[in-house]
Amino acid sequence: MSDRIWTAALVVIGDEILSGRTQDKNVAQIAAWLNVQGIRLAEVRVVADVEGAIVEAVNALRARNDYCFTTGGIGPTHDDITVDAIAVALGVGVVVHPEARAVLERYYEARGGLTEARLRMARVPEGAELIPNRMSGAPGIRVGNLFILAGVPHITAGMLDALTGTLEGGRPVLARTIGCWVAESEVATLLGDTERAHPGVAIGSYPFFREGRTGANFVVRATDQAVVDACVGDLTARLSAAGFAVVEGGI
Amino acid sequence: MSDRIWTAALVVIGDEILSGRTQDKNVAQIAAWLNVQGIRLAEVRVVADVEGAIVEAVNALRARNDYCFTTGGIGPTHDDITVDAIAVALGVGVVVHPEARAVLERYYEARGGLTEARLRMARVPEGAELIPNRMSGAPGIRVGNLFILAGVPHITAGMLDALTGTLEGGRPVLARTIGCWVAESEVATLLGDTERAHPGVAIGSYPFFREGRTGANFVVRATDQAVVDACVGDLTARLSAAGFAVVEGGI
Repeated sequence: MSDRIWTAALVVIGDEILSGRTQDKNVAQIAAWLNVQGIRLAEVRVVADVEGAIVEAVNALRARNDYCFTTGGIGPTHDDITVDAIAVALGVGVVVHPEARAVLERYYEARGGLTEARLRMARVPEGAELIPNRMSGAPGIRVGNLFILAGVPHITAGMLDALTGTLEGGRPVLARTIGCWVAESEVATLLGDTERAHPGVAIGSYPFFREGRTGANFVVRATDQAVVDACVGDLTARLSAAGFAVVEGGI
Repeated sequence: MSDRIWTAALVVIGDEILSGRTQDKNVAQIAAWLNVQGIRLAEVRVVADVEGAIVEAVNALRARNDYCFTTGGIGPTHDDITVDAIAVALGVGVVVHPEARAVLERYYEARGGLTEARLRMARVPEGAELIPNRMSGAPGIRVGNLFILAGVPHITAGMLDALTGTLEGGRPVLARTIGCWVAESEVATLLGDTERAHPGVAIGSYPFFREGRTGANFVVRATDQAVVDACVGDLTARLSAAGFAVVEGGI
């Protein structure tokens, strides 16, 4: 396991996210899955169902990350343009993948047969491999460091499942959370001091208002468990010394 | 009201979104609010709490949209670097805004007073105005076409409220939804044909699996109600003629 940081980016493709109609679930789901693979989600872009926007985002992000994922736009309808846009981004053609065609033929055998529209879902950028989809017919697509996934979250989840353990990564980021009924502004200096005293650690401060009271959760992140634990111990001691009760695991 | 399309972009700033710890709510909330103002959310980027990443995203997006919003990173703690990063992006200094200082002095009068950490929340890029925050102390910030909002969704909502009606926009995008218990692949050609027959209309197709059955909602969007209605009428007629029962309002 190497010590270098492996990164991924995500391009969420879909007018339905940008219109506010649909609440995205894939950013959180893919972020959590990537972390288990030892890969950090470094950036996300949400773009419209527009070829130029997809091409720009995919080309910018695949170049500077180890992996680039996309979600959405791989169905059979006119607004599903992801495969064509990515082929343009890569400067390759679009071909019908014989294995994808066979998968779809089997899937649609008892569902009215493989029509021209359904065959659209067997189209891939030249040179691509398939990512199995156990939920519905159409597979995901891998081409180079690009992973083209479905947008419907439970189908996305199935494709991630199929990819589990297949991508090289580094150490997962480990996190521990503690909480306090305190306004974060009261402990801001303490938090900054604690982070500086523990190299390799990031402390995130997440304020909330609940039951009419102000509180904050502090998430301590690092790739080494001992480093996380030492920082949590130090932070707990400092908060306690300042008179604040600490709730292990967060509030 | 002009016929040109007004666009906005959003930069979501926050390691907690990229780690998968927190489910973003602001994309959907801001998208829906923008649409009522007659402004289209054209693109979103989620970036880490890292100055270079914020600067790059803000500078790219403010240049090519009428408005650019940011959420997150304006609290009092060490990981709140949005104001400093945006000042770098704009090439201006950071100053304490006297009105923001007065607001915070009042807010913290009965809460232990204005400490150095809390005063951080009065810092703004030079030349900025404030956006009122009725939920908690620290105000949002407007500078040029940039709108710097809080990341906690109900505080973001209060700031949007304060901005309602103050931004120039065009016609809101109107949408009507109809649904069918049909696999979208069965009607893909019909959908594409219908969209092409109605210039200015976009039809989105959103498949789902529910109660063990396959269905899809079709969202018809345009800026003119008569155009939307004509397209919905045509689409309903075509789906009915093909033997599919249409559910007005979607399933």
